[in-house]
Amino acid sequence: MSDTKIAAANETKRGTNYSLYNGGSLQDWSQHKMEHPVRGKVRGKHFLKDHLDFTGCEISINSLPAGVAVPFSHQHKENEEVYIFIQGQGQMQIDHEIIDVSEGSIVRIAPNGLRTWRNNSAEPLVYIVIQVRENSLRQHTFEDGIPNMDPIDWPAI
Amino acid sequence: MSDTKIAAANETKRGTNYSLYNGGSLQDWSQHKMEHPVRGKVRGKHFLKDHLDFTGCEISINSLPAGVAVPFSHQHKENEEVYIFIQGQGQMQIDHEIIDVSEGSIVRIAPNGLRTWRNNSAEPLVYIVIQVRENSLRQHTFEDGIPNMDPIDWPAI
Repeated sequence: MSDTKIAAANETKRGTNYSLYNGGSLQDWSQHKMEHPVRGKVRGKHFLKDHLDFTGCEISINSLPAGVAVPFSHQHKENEEVYIFIQGQGQMQIDHEIIDVSEGSIVRIAPNGLRTWRNNSAEPLVYIVIQVRENSLRQHTFEDGIPNMDPIDWPAI
Repeated sequence: MSDTKIAAANETKRGTNYSLYNGGSLQDWSQHKMEHPVRGKVRGKHFLKDHLDFTGCEISINSLPAGVAVPFSHQHKENEEVYIFIQGQGQMQIDHEIIDVSEGSIVRIAPNGLRTWRNNSAEPLVYIVIQVRENSLRQHTFEDGIPNMDPIDWPAI
């Protein structure tokens, strides 16, 4: 599988402890492409792991056109998925139960959940999908964070 | 730590293999609150793990007001973080290097990266932060997915 970028401006910038990738404005996410092993070139989906060197997740940015349904369902072997809808309206089917989603809806799905989704509106459905290994998180936030109260030097706005 | 919800409408809906939470429209994310162990009630940040039963990640939804800087830096012990900016413009400092971010910028930070960020614009900076254990992903996407080509039954739009 290889992903294609929408523009040369979307190259990854890397530092010692970070990677930065610019996916462009939400309205341009429909122009992203991916190469699917069976379905060929698919528009409006872009997996980012290779751009951003993720080691604990895979994340895709997505834009599904008005009226379009994903043409298959899927489950996972060991990964939990999280869908974050940030623009538009649609529906998910999870184990044949239908739920409505819209801007601000966040859905966690266990590996065994049989899932598919569609855009049943007249505007693009824009969303982020996060894939992580189920039960892999050991600690988080205040247990895992190391605060540093040194003064922060910012240039004037 | 306990989070508060912006409205009773934001209760979690749970099925066998999923959890659904409605965070509301992006412009309402500024009204979410969290209880910080040192700083007390913090507006514009909401951790979702307890609402959505995540087992492989923690995710927060965030809205930082115009002109505001996070008043501290932090590192992590074992977690990789990913920042996805979905509205507005700002800057991150990572190990004292400043990078510009805006709608569509995605930043991975290794546990050791010393990070802070600010909104240096006149509009809210809206973003999602994902926390996962570094090196926890074993397989993903086509290796981990189980496609199902059974016909999908959707009600008419």
